[in-house]
Amino acid sequence: MLLKKNVPVSYVLGKIKVEMALLALYSTTVYVVHTYYHIPLVSIPVAVPSILGTVISLLLAFRSNQAYNRWWEARTLWGAIVNDSRSFARQVLSFIDNTYDDADKKAMKERMIKRQMAWCHSLSQHLRGQSAQPELKRLLSDEERQSVADVHHIPLALMEHHANDLRLLQRMNWINDYQQVAMDDTLTRFSNSMGGCERIKNTVFPVTYSFYIHIMVLFFVMLLPYTLIEFFGVFQIPLVVAISSSFFLIEKMAIHLQDPFENKPTDTPTTTISRNIERDLKMLLKDESPAEVDRPAITVNSTSVYYVL
Amino acid sequence: MLLKKNVPVSYVLGKIKVEMALLALYSTTVYVVHTYYHIPLVSIPVAVPSILGTVISLLLAFRSNQAYNRWWEARTLWGAIVNDSRSFARQVLSFIDNTYDDADKKAMKERMIKRQMAWCHSLSQHLRGQSAQPELKRLLSDEERQSVADVHHIPLALMEHHANDLRLLQRMNWINDYQQVAMDDTLTRFSNSMGGCERIKNTVFPVTYSFYIHIMVLFFVMLLPYTLIEFFGVFQIPLVVAISSSFFLIEKMAIHLQDPFENKPTDTPTTTISRNIERDLKMLLKDESPAEVDRPAITVNSTSVYYVL
Amino acid sequence: MLLKKNVPVSYVLGKIKVEMALLALYSTTVYVVHTYYHIPLVSIPVAVPSILGTVISLLLAFRSNQAYNRWWEARTLWGAIVNDSRSFARQVLSFIDNTYDDADKKAMKERMIKRQMAWCHSLSQHLRGQSAQPELKRLLSDEERQSVADVHHIPLALMEHHANDLRLLQRMNWINDYQQVAMDDTLTRFSNSMGGCERIKNTVFPVTYSFYIHIMVLFFVMLLPYTLIEFFGVFQIPLVVAISSSFFLIEKMAIHLQDPFENKPTDTPTTTISRNIERDLKMLLKDESPAEVDRPAITVNSTSVYYVL
Amino acid sequence: MLLKKNVPVSYVLGKIKVEMALLALYSTTVYVVHTYYHIPLVSIPVAVPSILGTVISLLLAFRSNQAYNRWWEARTLWGAIVNDSRSFARQVLSFIDNTYDDADKKAMKERMIKRQMAWCHSLSQHLRGQSAQPELKRLLSDEERQSVADVHHIPLALMEHHANDLRLLQRMNWINDYQQVAMDDTLTRFSNSMGGCERIKNTVFPVTYSFYIHIMVLFFVMLLPYTLIEFFGVFQIPLVVAISSSFFLIEKMAIHLQDPFENKPTDTPTTTISRNIERDLKMLLKDESPAEVDRPAITVNSTSVYYVL
Amino acid sequence: MLLKKNVPVSYVLGKIKVEMALLALYSTTVYVVHTYYHIPLVSIPVAVPSILGTVISLLLAFRSNQAYNRWWEARTLWGAIVNDSRSFARQVLSFIDNTYDDADKKAMKERMIKRQMAWCHSLSQHLRGQSAQPELKRLLSDEERQSVADVHHIPLALMEHHANDLRLLQRMNWINDYQQVAMDDTLTRFSNSMGGCERIKNTVFPVTYSFYIHIMVLFFVMLLPYTLIEFFGVFQIPLVVAISSSFFLIEKMAIHLQDPFENKPTDTPTTTISRNIERDLKMLLKDESPAEVDRPAITVNSTSVYYVL
Repeated sequence: MLLKKNVPVSYVLGKIKVEMALLALYSTTVYVVHTYYHIPLVSIPVAVPSILGTVISLLLAFRSNQAYNRWWEARTLWGAIVNDSRSFARQVLSFIDNTYDDADKKAMKERMIKRQMAWCHSLSQHLRGQSAQPELKRLLSDEERQSVADVHHIPLALMEHHANDLRLLQRMNWINDYQQVAMDDTLTRFSNSMGGCERIKNTVFPVTYSFYIHIMVLFFVMLLPYTLIEFFGVFQIPLVVAISSSFFLIEKMAIHLQDPFENKPTDTPTTTISRNIERDLKMLLKDESPAEVDRPAITVNSTSVYYVL
Repeated sequence: MLLKKNVPVSYVLGKIKVEMALLALYSTTVYVVHTYYHIPLVSIPVAVPSILGTVISLLLAFRSNQAYNRWWEARTLWGAIVNDSRSFARQVLSFIDNTYDDADKKAMKERMIKRQMAWCHSLSQHLRGQSAQPELKRLLSDEERQSVADVHHIPLALMEHHANDLRLLQRMNWINDYQQVAMDDTLTRFSNSMGGCERIKNTVFPVTYSFYIHIMVLFFVMLLPYTLIEFFGVFQIPLVVAISSSFFLIEKMAIHLQDPFENKPTDTPTTTISRNIERDLKMLLKDESPAEVDRPAITVNSTSVYYVL
Repeated sequence: MLLKKNVPVSYVLGKIKVEMALLALYSTTVYVVHTYYHIPLVSIPVAVPSILGTVISLLLAFRSNQAYNRWWEARTLWGAIVNDSRSFARQVLSFIDNTYDDADKKAMKERMIKRQMAWCHSLSQHLRGQSAQPELKRLLSDEERQSVADVHHIPLALMEHHANDLRLLQRMNWINDYQQVAMDDTLTRFSNSMGGCERIKNTVFPVTYSFYIHIMVLFFVMLLPYTLIEFFGVFQIPLVVAISSSFFLIEKMAIHLQDPFENKPTDTPTTTISRNIERDLKMLLKDESPAEVDRPAITVNSTSVYYVL
Repeated sequence: MLLKKNVPVSYVLGKIKVEMALLALYSTTVYVVHTYYHIPLVSIPVAVPSILGTVISLLLAFRSNQAYNRWWEARTLWGAIVNDSRSFARQVLSFIDNTYDDADKKAMKERMIKRQMAWCHSLSQHLRGQSAQPELKRLLSDEERQSVADVHHIPLALMEHHANDLRLLQRMNWINDYQQVAMDDTLTRFSNSMGGCERIKNTVFPVTYSFYIHIMVLFFVMLLPYTLIEFFGVFQIPLVVAISSSFFLIEKMAIHLQDPFENKPTDTPTTTISRNIERDLKMLLKDESPAEVDRPAITVNSTSVYYVL
Repeated sequence: MLLKKNVPVSYVLGKIKVEMALLALYSTTVYVVHTYYHIPLVSIPVAVPSILGTVISLLLAFRSNQAYNRWWEARTLWGAIVNDSRSFARQVLSFIDNTYDDADKKAMKERMIKRQMAWCHSLSQHLRGQSAQPELKRLLSDEERQSVADVHHIPLALMEHHANDLRLLQRMNWINDYQQVAMDDTLTRFSNSMGGCERIKNTVFPVTYSFYIHIMVLFFVMLLPYTLIEFFGVFQIPLVVAISSSFFLIEKMAIHLQDPFENKPTDTPTTTISRNIERDLKMLLKDESPAEVDRPAITVNSTSVYYVL
């Protein structure tokens, strides 16, 4: 989960420091050439960057909107995974009636709920193209872990294990027919959330659109000093840097938001969410929270998940 | 529920009085320096704030839109909690057939419906990081209240109690198999609403976006006096304050709307909604409304929930 | 249902005639002071109202959009009530098998379908804070009508009666277990539509946002004559009135659309919709349409529901 | 289904030829008066139509958006009717087990699927206020057709027949209890689509909004010649016509899109969709396509459904 | 799945090279005529293209938005097909209990899952108006393939085969009644996705809207040289080409995005998605991946699906 803190200015500016340096150099050059060498420059009326600015603003607004929607959809999908994981655990615990404390039933419940935790971790890592072996080791039986070791899509294989267990539960009459169908519905919702994340991961934002906006911003920035120099003289340098930086920043934000599963600090925090799911499901299992595992892990990336740029 | 009243001007202005004072000081300084000390100021053509104004307006419109959507989604989630609480009570009352006035059944019904009231209150307080002990004391049995005293997520634990009661109802044949699944569906919807609120609560609005807009507004405000002084003279002071205030106000509104569970007067009114749910469910239970409990509670915060800024 | 007619210009202008009169007076005063008394006025460059106009347009567009969405959501919720009322009647008529023309079953069907009509009317009046006694008298049995006479939320109480009848139907084996759950689903949808309407009714549109836009429009209107007088002379008076009126009109429209259950002619036409539901359900019941009741009622408000401002 | 073709320029211009003629006359008059009679005209600075143009563009964009959404929702509702008709036919064919080729079952299946075709045609005509007798004659039994001859809402009555047949199927044990409920769900979806279309049909777009935009466009068009004449002389005439026409065209498009069930060539193509549903369901029934009925009907309106203005 | 790569500038420019060449010629002509022949040109104030630019930007933003929504909806529908195909395979595998390794059951499972793969391929090709015979040959039995050889809508016919197999499964008691209904629900979701794709395929984007925007862009481009030549001289040529190209590019992007099933490189990648579904379902079937079939196929179109313009 993202922590709320004041963002240090240095962090924000760090994202665009190369662009800012180049722009400062460029506008200084224009100023020097104009003032000391008296080379007559093309004089650009203020209306030209004004038109360009409006057009770029509209396009950036459209783009930010779509990028934000992708980011928010990704967050909503993981929100649905949280909800459905809790619902799945609730169904496992309340549909199977082990009031008389049947050890077999208890073991089965634990197996299924721990597999659900493992599924969340494995989906989180699968989306980032990374291995979830540490979590799988911790949460799955050795046998089950080996059965999914070689498959190309671990979360899908784990869902299949869930479905097989549902059949088992029904065959043993631990759940009735309607309960099986109701729990299968929950698996379908997991499948939909998983597929939704893959869709966002695998569908690039229309590339030429991004490319074209970038070109227009560069073009706008190039024209700016010629317009401002007449009115502001040497003050045009900070003005150019300030105005241009804001356009670059908005652009950068859209680029970061539109791909939320790329293992960047601005990702949808799938690792933290998976860990929270684990904590909640363990509470439902009346299990002790493995404090020694959780805390250091949170500390590790605590410096890098503060900001969403 | 928010009451409709005319908003006193003083309330609106109170939100931004620091900004207004600083701006008045700043533009007065500009005026004094310009007029009495005859220090030649940079003359900024009207087109520069015009471009900036359009850009900022577009960005603020985008931002207000997203903030409004978060606020409205939070309200809709709590609307769903109202609807599902009523549906849950209806199912409890009509699925369990106690026409022959079975005292056990009646007690069970009351226990479940009161737990649902307690769940609403506990979720409301959980989202704000506060304790819901007074409401839990009033609505839960002592035994149940102690069982959830130490858990980190009380609403989730109460949902588990609901699910256990559903299993009990089914085992005793007070509800049939389909009814259990149908009521479990209702629990799933509660789980979704709860998770949706937590998602809004825990996901910060992209921070640098807010930060960047704030910088641009400040920048715009700084330039304004230099542009207006030529045309308006001393009248530029109120003009600058008026125009700038409006940008600050829109910004403030977005900041308030985007985080609707922060225990501010502009929150989603979860306390009032929970109290209304309690009143409606009590009506369904044919219970007397505990007038002496309700009324003072409403009075307490009646002065602070009038406005949504 | 709203009738399509040409809107007389007088109706549209009637909504803002006070504002128009004041504006005409104001701009005439400016003209007279400027022209006959030769008092030098502040000369405002055309760019200032131009910036303000763009900003206000963007904010009004955002606001109109949100207001329109609330209005359309209210309409959609009542559309869902129409659909679900028909589905409920269909389920009542086809799930209960009275092919051999059982008088008891027939009476039960009629009771439930008439109660559904009564529910629509009572919700319509409940949202407006009015009494639905005439319709309840017409559609409910005396006994049932008295049982809901004192409750604070009549539609909710009627839903409870529906649920009790479902239990009765199931106990008598007139419907089977799945059919009870399916019909309970329909009741849940009614509950959701009812709650959605209450959410729209009880949630005020962010007040300071409206307030702030109003202030900006006033401010814009105040500046307008000073800008236009140089170019247009006496013609600035109609120009100021025309341009300002359009902003006021858009604002008025948003204010009307955003609160669709306030017993204004621009409401969601819940009374007409309820009457149409009654007509459709009566057709399904093979009942004669009570022409002498319906027709005058429609005539009464036929002059006031033509326009949506 | 709409065919893709190049739109002849004459078609597009035909929609607004009256407006174009009047505008040409008006701007010519302005030119003549200005040039030959040397009557000094009010000189309007270019900024005034510039503000107006931006405002109108924003309002037209909002309006086009809402009109497009209504049109797309209507299309989506008919898409849902296509999907659900296929699903209904699939359920009828696969839930009723007539592997041993029972003639009664076969006749029942055909009756239900043909009634579904008839329902689509009757809804299409009902929305346009026209009679669907030819299609009903072709697809329903005489007895059934007469039973719906006098009702005011034929599609609703046909749904009732569907529901009665479902009860019949269940009573004869041709479908089991769950299948009845599942098919009743499909009927509920038909009911929702039907109600959605009626909602769009019966809810006028806020009238004064359209009216006000129209007034603003006219006002803008009136001012245009005075602004352009100084820069362009006689060339202002085509310029005024070109710029104004584009605003009128956008406005016209919105007006056409917002009411998609008015029997215009730009409607949602409900007749064609109904015919396609008929073809698909006949394929599922393994029926021969009645080529002699279909083809001429398609030819008749093939010239009028090409364009969506 | 679309691969992420840097888009070579040449690719982007290739899309509009004809337009760019014509524009360069046009603006050069204007320059030559103006400079060398000293023919006095109409001087267009910078405000005219400024108004036009804002209007066109707003309209293009609206249009891009709608086109993007169509494209994203198409992608989401195919995402749903992925999810539901996996859910369907899961249901087939886990609802039919062949723990004792019944060869008949195993063959049935394989038949149904392979038919699902075939369905995806056939829908992909059906939308593009192409034949899916190679895939059908590979995945269906000869008998089944011939039964769908002559139908006009192969995916619909395959769905019918699915439904018939469900009836068979139920008759043989391999699945119970609730499971049949649950799997029929999955078929309904396939039907909805299929119908959604056909809706997008068959509904043209309002033609005159596109046409009108195109005219406005052309008009804007024609005026541009006259405005820029005074300020920039010979530099107006690259400026005109650059500004105009960007408008053409945005327009082109919208045209490509709005029709995502036209067998262009910018389509929704239905072939790749179908192949991935095949791979996932084969994994669930524990089948060996037919490496020799898959790999070359991917190579074939690997050069053409890189970019989404």
